[in-house]
Formats: sequence, structure tokens, C-alpha cells
Amino acid sequence: MADAGERALVALVRERVRPAPAWVAVGPGDDAAVVAPERNALEVLTTDALVEGVHFDRAFVPPDAIGHRALAVNLSDLAAMGAAPRSALLSLVLPPGLPLADFTAILDGFDALARAHGVALLGGNITRSPGPLVIDVTAIGSVRPRRVLTRGGARPGDEVWVSGDIGAAAAGLQSLAAGEPGSPDMAACRAAFLRPRPRVRLGALLGRNRAATSCIDLSDGLADGLHQIAASSGAGVEVDGRSVPILPAASAWFEARGKDPLLEAAAGGDDYELLFTVGPKGRGAFSAVRRQAGGVRLTRIGVVRAGSGVSLRRGGAAEPLPSGFEHFQ
Amino acid sequence: MADAGERALVALVRERVRPAPAWVAVGPGDDAAVVAPERNALEVLTTDALVEGVHFDRAFVPPDAIGHRALAVNLSDLAAMGAAPRSALLSLVLPPGLPLADFTAILDGFDALARAHGVALLGGNITRSPGPLVIDVTAIGSVRPRRVLTRGGARPGDEVWVSGDIGAAAAGLQSLAAGEPGSPDMAACRAAFLRPRPRVRLGALLGRNRAATSCIDLSDGLADGLHQIAASSGAGVEVDGRSVPILPAASAWFEARGKDPLLEAAAGGDDYELLFTVGPKGRGAFSAVRRQAGGVRLTRIGVVRAGSGVSLRRGGAAEPLPSGFEHFQ
Repeated sequence: MADAGERALVALVRERVRPAPAWVAVGPGDDAAVVAPERNALEVLTTDALVEGVHFDRAFVPPDAIGHRALAVNLSDLAAMGAAPRSALLSLVLPPGLPLADFTAILDGFDALARAHGVALLGGNITRSPGPLVIDVTAIGSVRPRRVLTRGGARPGDEVWVSGDIGAAAAGLQSLAAGEPGSPDMAACRAAFLRPRPRVRLGALLGRNRAATSCIDLSDGLADGLHQIAASSGAGVEVDGRSVPILPAASAWFEARGKDPLLEAAAGGDDYELLFTVGPKGRGAFSAVRRQAGGVRLTRIGVVRAGSGVSLRRGGAAEPLPSGFEHFQ
Repeated sequence: MADAGERALVALVRERVRPAPAWVAVGPGDDAAVVAPERNALEVLTTDALVEGVHFDRAFVPPDAIGHRALAVNLSDLAAMGAAPRSALLSLVLPPGLPLADFTAILDGFDALARAHGVALLGGNITRSPGPLVIDVTAIGSVRPRRVLTRGGARPGDEVWVSGDIGAAAAGLQSLAAGEPGSPDMAACRAAFLRPRPRVRLGALLGRNRAATSCIDLSDGLADGLHQIAASSGAGVEVDGRSVPILPAASAWFEARGKDPLLEAAAGGDDYELLFTVGPKGRGAFSAVRRQAGGVRLTRIGVVRAGSGVSLRRGGAAEPLPSGFEHFQ
């Protein structure tokens, strides 16, 4: 479905996606795309939509960041399964009066991240809408059989690890939404929200090396991720609050507003980090992953216990960690 | 990304999709789905979004028809490539105040069509929105190598064929939008718009038997489909206007409004019929397809010529057929 204006936009998209890799038999421009699946691999598929006014505000999220984020959140989901990304489909629902320059900037943001990870854009769909901008991406990756990571494999005694920093995106979003002039200190937090770097290489390494017993991405925040792994694995998780890696600028942002940095960071979403568990048999493989992970910070933050739920220990007694989280509206 | 309310809705979706087929290694509920690709087959992928106020109006399109249509338009794209559908991903962007009964009815409409064609729902995404309802589906199918149908294979001398009836959906939409009480005569037209039946079996048969040299679905109307095949194939098409199959009720609807039924039917979109060309070598295979196609009406409407563009002959001299079409807004 397309009208003449939409077709001109589709042509703009197509210009960007050439040349297609050899395994793409039919690329954008026909009723559907045709690809040769990767041999001896399982296919991993995910879809996630970003909606203006729910997941981002065009007042402070530049269009290239919208395109970047839309692909990043999906690549992060593939990484959490241990899969390497391969291709994507892009569905754009465009509000009235969106400037053409914004449209091409959205594509540029998408395209730059796709190229960085060797993701082929197979096709998509552009439609007008009376309502907010919606950018919906389906991402497809591949993983070898028996190398898939799920949320459900954590066992008592496993170590709990997380990549990168927690809470930076939440602090960055609050700073952007407050309309404050960007300070150098907050630049990393704002970047974490605007242009998250999905842990594509780390996820594929964890899967390929069978280094993790479970994995999830932190799109809905650390607290939620811990609860999801605990519930899916039929186990409990105890987190050492002092070890959770929080960027100093994010801590300072929350403290200056009278908030508990750890709880804010744990509840804040949009951290596209990986949370995973490492079992006794996987420790050697995990050491190899750490060497190959290219400088991504990896921090041990807790342990899997028999039982259920998530508890947080900060020096004294453990307290339950709520799974609550909220989105910018 | 989901909040508590969205998670309850996701749980409703999951209840409907069990049990998954054996080739689904990880179904809905993790960061992504994992499937085993079909052996010795190419994979065919398409995505199409329906937007309230652009592609449908909730005032006269019941929610189950919204769910049905969203999957149908994608299955139609797969059929046009000669592919058999296998799986789908569903992305729902929900407006404020959508009744839960409407939500479940959308799922029911989607699910009934999915079951009818053996399509496994692999996963998806539900998000709130301040704006209109958007339902975005990615459909995935499979086709044997060298059995793919594209728009670009028509050659001079090939016959041009179309399935079903043309223009019924356009007349049905006009009748619905006018708020007229449904007449028995118009019921088929309204049904053609509300619950189109994608030509899943016909498309797969045409591909498998190598019976067609090119194929497209008529989501944007017959005139557009003819122009797309002509342009992609580097050839011209001459249509015999008297042979184009138009439902009598649709003809009567257009005539009563002083419009040319053939031009209205050709310009009207939302016909999820297949338009395809049959070459001299494919005629035997096509006869076999006709026997197996289960009573789907197939009509020869023209011939491929050297040259370019689409001409329409109605008794006398041929005239150019415009590719114009429009959508309900």
C-alpha cells in the first residue's frame, strides 16, 4: 500500500540499501523479499515499535537518533538470545508535516547502525498517518543450534553479570526532558538514551561460547531484567547493591534530586545492556569471552539462589527489590 | 518495552498461540523467537502496517476485521511471490480507551486467519499510543529455489490473468463509508473489503508449478498492478476491458453514481487478488494449477506486448490506462 508520495520515499530508502549481500535473492521493491537462510543455523526474530510521545519526544530526540534507537532496541533483543544480526524490515508511520530532512535523517540513523553491524535492510513499508510517528522494526538474526540463550536457564549458584553502566539512559532522558542545557558531565547519559549501543558482539560471544546460562537485555531496566530471569528460571536472585555499576554523572543527577541512585538506576528503562548468568561450567568460556569482548565493561553484581524473587543487599540485611519501572510519557 | 497493562495484554496473546509447531524452538515470551528454517527453501519476508484513519475506520470496520485484514494483506504479499506462509510477528500500537473486547476481537480476527493457513504467531509487541490504532504485521513464508515469482518476468506474448473479482472491495468500502444500510447485493463487496481472502493456495501453486512468469497482488488495484508488472518486466500490457471480471453488484454501485465501472474497479485498491502472466512454456503447468486451485475464478484479461505501459481496449482502439488510485482517508 503506497501512494505516489510514499513511493518517492520508498525510492529514497532503496537507494540506501544497495548493494544487497549475495544471500538476498530479492531485495526491496517486489511484494516481499527473498533470502537464503544461513546454513546450519536457527533463525531469531524480534519486532519492536517506537512511538512518538511514548518512547521518545521529537522535541529533544533528533531524527537520526530515532532511526538509530529503533534498530538498536531490536539488535539488543537479538544479542540477548546469543544471535548475530543479519537483516531487518522497517515500517514507518509518518505524521503530517514531517520534514523530508527529518525523514532522511531517520533513515541515516538507521542505516549507520545497520552498516556497523552488517544488517541488510530487506524491505519495509511507509504510510501516512494522522497521528504520531511510529517506527517499527523487525530484526532477524541467526544462532547455531544449542547456542541459544534464554531467560530461563539460571541455576542456584550461578553468578549474575551485567554489561556497561546502569541508569545512564534514565538520567539522560530526565535531563533531556527537563530541557536543561547539556553539560559535559551529562553528555554520556544523554548519549546512552539517544544512541544506545546494543551489545551485539557480546551477545553473540556469550552464545557461541556457551558462556552464559541465561540472558536478557535491559530495555525495561535492571530490576525488571532480574525479575524476568528469576521468574523464567524458577530461582531467586540476590544482588549486591554496592557492585551495581552506575555512571558517576547519573548517580550525581539522581542524588541532586533527592533520589536513591541505585533504585532509580535499577528501575530506569532504556539501558540496552545485557544481564546474564554464568554457571560453574561456563567460567572458563566466560573468561575467553571477556578477552574477546572488546573492552565492554562487565561487572558481577550478584548470585542466583534457590527460591524466588529478587533481593538487594547493601551492607546489611537483604531487602526485596521492586520490579517497578515507568516510561516517559 | 511494556508496562504492567501491556504485559497483561501480551499474556492474552500468548494464550492464543499455544501450542507452537515443533520447528519453533523459542516462542513468544523471551527477548526474541527462535525457529528452525525450512530445509532446502528460500525464505520470503514482508511487512505491512494498517493505520486507523488511513486504511480503515473503526466506525465501520469491526475489530475482528482489522485483525483479519492486517494478516491478510501480508499473506497476500507472500502469495504473490509464490511462497507458502509459515509464521508472523504482530506489532500493535493501541490508542487511548480501546475497549478490551475490541483488543481481543482484533486478536481473534488475526488468529482465525492464521489458523486457517497454518501460520504460527512467533511474537510481537504491544504499546500504548496517544494516536490512532496501528497494526503492523511481518509475515514469513518459504519457497523452493527457482520457484520464486517476481514482478519482473513477463515477456511479450505471455497471457495476463487475474484471480477473483476486481473492484468489489472499492465498492464495498464506498458503501461502508457512506453509512448505508447493508443490502444483500452489496454484502459480497463489503466482505471483500472487510475480510479479504488472500490467495495463499493459488500463489503457492503458481510458484511450485512454475506456471507463471510474473505475479503481483492487487493491494493497490488492478491498474497499478498492471503498470508494476509492465515496468518491472520492461514490457507493455494490453488489457481487454470486456474480459475484466467485475462483480455485478460492484458494477451497479459505480453505474448508479455515474462512474465508469471498469475504470473505478481498475483504480480501486484493496483487491487482494493475484495478477500474473503465463508464458507459452507454462500453459500445461497452468492447466494443472487451475484444476488444483479449488474453485478460485481465474480470468484471462490481456496479453503482454513489446514496448511499455498499459493500454486498455474496449471494442475499438486501445487507450492508455492510468495507474491512478487513491486510498480512503
